[in-house]
Amino acid sequence: MRFSWWLENSEESFLGEILKSAENPNLISFAGGFPAPELFPVDDLKAAFNEVLTHDNAYALQYGDAAGYFNLREWISKQHTRHGQRLTPEDVVITTGSQQGLNLVAQALLDPGDIIFVETPTYIGALQAFQMYRPRIMMVPSDIEGILPDELEKMLQKHNPKFLYLIPNYQNPTGKIMGKERRNELIAVASKYELCIVEDNPYGELRFEGEPQPNLLDLSENVIYLGTFSKVLAPGLRVGYIIGDPKVIEFVTRVKEAVDLHSNNLTQRAVYQYLQRNLLPSHIAKLRTIYKSRRDAMVQALHRYLEGEVEIIVPSGGMFLWAKFTGIKDSFKYLEDTIRQNVIYVPGAVFYPDHRISSEMRLNFSCSPPEVIDEGIRRLAQAVRKKY
Amino acid sequence: MRFSWWLENSEESFLGEILKSAENPNLISFAGGFPAPELFPVDDLKAAFNEVLTHDNAYALQYGDAAGYFNLREWISKQHTRHGQRLTPEDVVITTGSQQGLNLVAQALLDPGDIIFVETPTYIGALQAFQMYRPRIMMVPSDIEGILPDELEKMLQKHNPKFLYLIPNYQNPTGKIMGKERRNELIAVASKYELCIVEDNPYGELRFEGEPQPNLLDLSENVIYLGTFSKVLAPGLRVGYIIGDPKVIEFVTRVKEAVDLHSNNLTQRAVYQYLQRNLLPSHIAKLRTIYKSRRDAMVQALHRYLEGEVEIIVPSGGMFLWAKFTGIKDSFKYLEDTIRQNVIYVPGAVFYPDHRISSEMRLNFSCSPPEVIDEGIRRLAQAVRKKY
Repeated sequence: MRFSWWLENSEESFLGEILKSAENPNLISFAGGFPAPELFPVDDLKAAFNEVLTHDNAYALQYGDAAGYFNLREWISKQHTRHGQRLTPEDVVITTGSQQGLNLVAQALLDPGDIIFVETPTYIGALQAFQMYRPRIMMVPSDIEGILPDELEKMLQKHNPKFLYLIPNYQNPTGKIMGKERRNELIAVASKYELCIVEDNPYGELRFEGEPQPNLLDLSENVIYLGTFSKVLAPGLRVGYIIGDPKVIEFVTRVKEAVDLHSNNLTQRAVYQYLQRNLLPSHIAKLRTIYKSRRDAMVQALHRYLEGEVEIIVPSGGMFLWAKFTGIKDSFKYLEDTIRQNVIYVPGAVFYPDHRISSEMRLNFSCSPPEVIDEGIRRLAQAVRKKY
Repeated sequence: MRFSWWLENSEESFLGEILKSAENPNLISFAGGFPAPELFPVDDLKAAFNEVLTHDNAYALQYGDAAGYFNLREWISKQHTRHGQRLTPEDVVITTGSQQGLNLVAQALLDPGDIIFVETPTYIGALQAFQMYRPRIMMVPSDIEGILPDELEKMLQKHNPKFLYLIPNYQNPTGKIMGKERRNELIAVASKYELCIVEDNPYGELRFEGEPQPNLLDLSENVIYLGTFSKVLAPGLRVGYIIGDPKVIEFVTRVKEAVDLHSNNLTQRAVYQYLQRNLLPSHIAKLRTIYKSRRDAMVQALHRYLEGEVEIIVPSGGMFLWAKFTGIKDSFKYLEDTIRQNVIYVPGAVFYPDHRISSEMRLNFSCSPPEVIDEGIRRLAQAVRKKY
């Protein structure tokens, strides 16, 4: 069998390994980006599926529109504005999770050799989706608020990227949030160079403290926005969406149709049924409270077991904490030891497209209760120390 | 916005228009490839979803394995053999319908400029999936049983295609089935040239008469097989699968992970639950009986209203009847008239990658009861005659 150039030249994925490792019940995993399964609204979703299969019955099981279930698109369109303007269902296409959103945008926009800009570091799954289309990926220097507008402008003077990809809220992997002023500066530079921004916002609703920030979608016309129900409802349902202007949506929908015709019809209707009952706001409130307590537990445990040995960014929302180990050089090297101790993290290196050596780790706190987080960080400290 | 070369140079899709037209309740549609919605086992599926949400609960809603739900892969592996050998779950990856199977195989195998071979004519959705990867698509001449082995060999002497794509059972669009001898001859040629065959089998179970034919997967090691629950259960669930050797599955799974992480977890488990209860065989038996009566109704109506004006291939299974109109030249030109008469078909031209002018039509019979089929063919005859 002769495979494509891209595939023959790609490495086995770390993300796939993480998904697999989730099946070992003794492992304390700080590696995944998994929501807390015990908080899934199982009964409400059961009621929603029953309702749809009772009332929509055959329609829910037949082929559907490539752009997605109309009522769900309408609901989503009402939650957002673009450049201050109201949206319509024609601005929305439903995707099989946000990962498919990343893939569809890349497939709609990229030709081999095209330049794209990303944050430093950035989401590994986005890199995997983009790399299939063989672009040149360039990293824009970032500080604690994300992309530096001056650095972006310098790069735009030299290069003409197809888009800039970023996660402004509780970024993956760093947990950073971009403040309002920085957003405005970023949009000013992007507008000047007619730069298209792909705004990925899976975690924005998981806000523990601070004021909500405006979406970049709200500040500019040249934004493609990716949203998802994976982190606020349940990832196993695979329901995400793309918001863009009708031309973008038309083109992305054409790609969507060619790649899988449309997303699961029954599930789209069940999610809409759940949303219709107005159950999401209280569910999100619960997630915020519990994830905040888990973040606090992780911060405390890091102080308890690794004081003076790590520098951390305390995230004000989301699912991830970014820890830089001052006494070690390459966090990749400790992975085997920690797995032996039944704890796992993601080494920082995988989030840099240049695969630089990194002393950083991404630690997920959403998926384990406080006492498990404490025990996991204790094990992690042990495993890392042995090598000092 | 600057889109990819492929997208800028593609046309709006006819398939998308068909999916949309399904929403007009007055239209008699012979255009879609839709199963009969009134036959969907709604209550059994409702029970299956309830069962999964009650017993698997959180697991069904969490992220899952990129290759798909293990038990479902195991169930599928037990239904098939490859080159006479038993399969294991490692030979199977779950896809979001067979359309995603087509896309994943194309994305895993194709680089721009690669040659692929297809039947003449062939499934439009496959062409759409393949065309994104910019191959050279070459048509192998076919007769009433599909691909002509001699013609295939002549082409293989000159070209080295990445794969041959075909639908051996109740082909889309022609309804043809490939006999056993032809299958053996085809495999002999393919083996001689180490040709990879992509065998798409969505309709094989919908057999009205005649003996079942062996899958090409059973006759050769060099086959990638695409299966789906869309036609035998419900397409809105979007559950299909790819069978291949473990190396193919490993690579395809890597692509799957990058394009959407994995397919809907809850739905995979519900389909498995339904299969576990052994409900599928009797459901398929029902589909066979009813679809056969609809095929008969369509054949009769064509004789009644268009005797001497069409040549038809009477399919022994599946969902489609292929009709060649002897008195007209280009079946595309009658589409507007028939839509005005509230009946729709697919013009033959769209199934030829060279977009040749065709006097043929693909007529779907699975989705309308006999009296509606009769009325639809009556309207079709009227619309077509007006132009004679």
